[in-house]
Amino acid sequence: MVSILDGLKAAVPENRIFLDGDVMAAYARDQAAWAPAGRPLALVKPEDAEQVRAVVAACAEHRVPVVTRGAGTGLSGGANAVDGCVLLALDGMDRILEIDADEQLAVVQPGVINDNLRAAVAEHGLWYPPDPASSPWSTIGGNVATNAGGVCCVKYGVTRDYVLGLRVVTAAGDLVSVGRRTRKGVAGYDLTALFVGSEGTLGVITEVTVRLLPLPVAPPQAVVGAFDSLVAAGRGVAAVAASGIMPAALELVDRYCLRAVDDWKNMGLTDLGDVLLLGRIDTGDEAAAAAMQDCFDAAGATWSTRSTDVEEADALFAARRLAYPALERLGPVLTEDVCVPRGLVPEMLGRIEERGKEYGVLIASIAHAGDGNLHPLIVVQPGDDDARARAQLAFEAILDDAVALGGTVTGEHGVGLLKKRGMHAELGPDVVRLNQAIKTAFDPHGILNPGKAV
Amino acid sequence: MVSILDGLKAAVPENRIFLDGDVMAAYARDQAAWAPAGRPLALVKPEDAEQVRAVVAACAEHRVPVVTRGAGTGLSGGANAVDGCVLLALDGMDRILEIDADEQLAVVQPGVINDNLRAAVAEHGLWYPPDPASSPWSTIGGNVATNAGGVCCVKYGVTRDYVLGLRVVTAAGDLVSVGRRTRKGVAGYDLTALFVGSEGTLGVITEVTVRLLPLPVAPPQAVVGAFDSLVAAGRGVAAVAASGIMPAALELVDRYCLRAVDDWKNMGLTDLGDVLLLGRIDTGDEAAAAAMQDCFDAAGATWSTRSTDVEEADALFAARRLAYPALERLGPVLTEDVCVPRGLVPEMLGRIEERGKEYGVLIASIAHAGDGNLHPLIVVQPGDDDARARAQLAFEAILDDAVALGGTVTGEHGVGLLKKRGMHAELGPDVVRLNQAIKTAFDPHGILNPGKAV
Repeated sequence: MVSILDGLKAAVPENRIFLDGDVMAAYARDQAAWAPAGRPLALVKPEDAEQVRAVVAACAEHRVPVVTRGAGTGLSGGANAVDGCVLLALDGMDRILEIDADEQLAVVQPGVINDNLRAAVAEHGLWYPPDPASSPWSTIGGNVATNAGGVCCVKYGVTRDYVLGLRVVTAAGDLVSVGRRTRKGVAGYDLTALFVGSEGTLGVITEVTVRLLPLPVAPPQAVVGAFDSLVAAGRGVAAVAASGIMPAALELVDRYCLRAVDDWKNMGLTDLGDVLLLGRIDTGDEAAAAAMQDCFDAAGATWSTRSTDVEEADALFAARRLAYPALERLGPVLTEDVCVPRGLVPEMLGRIEERGKEYGVLIASIAHAGDGNLHPLIVVQPGDDDARARAQLAFEAILDDAVALGGTVTGEHGVGLLKKRGMHAELGPDVVRLNQAIKTAFDPHGILNPGKAV
Repeated sequence: MVSILDGLKAAVPENRIFLDGDVMAAYARDQAAWAPAGRPLALVKPEDAEQVRAVVAACAEHRVPVVTRGAGTGLSGGANAVDGCVLLALDGMDRILEIDADEQLAVVQPGVINDNLRAAVAEHGLWYPPDPASSPWSTIGGNVATNAGGVCCVKYGVTRDYVLGLRVVTAAGDLVSVGRRTRKGVAGYDLTALFVGSEGTLGVITEVTVRLLPLPVAPPQAVVGAFDSLVAAGRGVAAVAASGIMPAALELVDRYCLRAVDDWKNMGLTDLGDVLLLGRIDTGDEAAAAAMQDCFDAAGATWSTRSTDVEEADALFAARRLAYPALERLGPVLTEDVCVPRGLVPEMLGRIEERGKEYGVLIASIAHAGDGNLHPLIVVQPGDDDARARAQLAFEAILDDAVALGGTVTGEHGVGLLKKRGMHAELGPDVVRLNQAIKTAFDPHGILNPGKAV
């Protein structure tokens, strides 16, 4: 009987297999600093779908776990190695195979970087909306595996809304096509939606067909409001939601983030106020922008402004983009990703502040506030084990708060390793059983990303 | 051991069980005139989710098939009785449970009529976009079970895009909640998308949470073009698709439909031309409406017009609404539902004409042309068995044509009984196996709508 290594050597050219410990370690975890990672048996970087198929088939034969990853920008540990696994790194499969401007779709390999796809389709006057903060680095395959969101979701939806079809290698080592190139289609169950967000536990995505929209032509208008408390800013969000305005973005950045950005970049953000709301209108509708500013003012904004100057609007949104890296400079960041009904954003923000006090940890908040998706960021000093333990308690308490408010433990980052308890608390045993029934049906020997998500 | 009838009597009040043959016959089939229907054992009309749960549990215990139906407006036989089944009619569970204007969502029982939901949410300034032609009669539960489309899909998507969450009775007789009330969420597999379009084969839907949009405020603009051939009209569709214009509707009605409507209502439609394209712009954007008219003219329209008068626009769209009932007056209609890439609409229309000639049958065409979803309607004289046999051959040939063009055998009507062969041809054996694995995982004894879809 051949070994798994012999099987891998038969599946891919030998120079696509990496056994060096340091090289494997560099691929063994994503950006979830707090999630554990195991020791892989081998790292494999296939060149095409057929090689992916052959690797999975070899792993299936030997009952060896397969952990698939793109750029490794995930925030839940979903791509972390498990002991003895084959790490399947698809970042090298990065070709855009087709852009069909008439059909408004593109076909890409999973390793294509999100921003590269956006730039390529823009040359055809088209737009791929999903815009996770990781878009300069993260891959479409990873975006699909986690059903990534982003800033524009409040108006344009999430990755799932743009995936028409997939090619997928199943746990049995079959390469299959699901979904379609047409705008509509209801033949069979929606397997495409099932694979989207399945975090590598149901199959390995080797090709993605995405739907595109026309590139917006109106210059974006930015609407910014400063508030003296999270709760007042939350009222601003609820007011916009109730007004019927359709913002293309509605982001919140709190005082801790503003301070961290100022300490790093000296942008004078803390002079504007304690909490910023950053709104965007992309229809060219001046009245809608004015109405959003009115919502901010009525909710008690201490300062507000509007801008149709693209560079000025970009500068205002820089506070949002820089917040996460600015906080990471302070110490390990434990990233929450709760999502609550929009009207409960003020309540949830209040509870997060309470949890910070209760557990004695710094919790900074950035949020896709317009769709209720909050990212409280728990930051501790490096090496402070006691604070780390308290941070983990605060993390779980915030998940429970979100569930108690009718929300979810993960709006867009995925379950991975960090949200497994929270997911069980949210879904309940009957629905977890349905999830596990699907997992067992698709992967009876449990070789695909075992121990993650469901 | 108690009988299934005793089990039903324990599950629902006795006056909710109907055993009369005529009453049952009235509920034993949907609108797919050509699909076979079996003889049910009993008709049950539950009053609430708990009664649905108890009925399914009784059927599970006795291994009795359960066929669920709403208004019975389906066009693929999906709701047709199978021999010895319990027919579960949910049209009486028709309450709107909640409309939350701030969160822009509604929670409804499955028997709520589509138009009733639309009217109720309009009072709150909100809109439920999915608009199948059956909207005055069809239920939200049926719309969800078939992932119904409609006229507005070209811009606004299909039913699946508006379902946030469901309550579902599983084959084991458990009542579970899947999905969410929040705008985003990725905890666990997307079970909501899996149940949407599953045609009663995975569970029985007892409650639906739908996402709503603000009611469009701009008066709709109608753009109409007349063409002297299907292929020329198809060029008009492809031109609009390539232009980047986002029509809120783009419908095609052919000469046979126009003649049938004129024979019935004497509207003078046939004087306008052989084939009509009916476009709608709902943004108030005059330039977009003018550009759509230019597309029609450039594609060879023999006549075109625009109207911002709501009543006039409605009158122009009446041709589309009346086409199907007008054709039904001529004889049994076998309804196709193929969907092809938009740019291949002219090619597909040409092939449909060829198939009509080849098999010597009348094929009239209406189409949601803007999204490539075509409804060729094969009409035969009542009692002409030879024509009926030829019609069935033409039906299958058109399905194969659609698959050959990279399309699907069903854009929005579902597989039911009529598209089973076509679905297998489209998906192929590997993907059919994945579908069947899900079916077996959810319904191991095969009691939920057996013999339908997958």
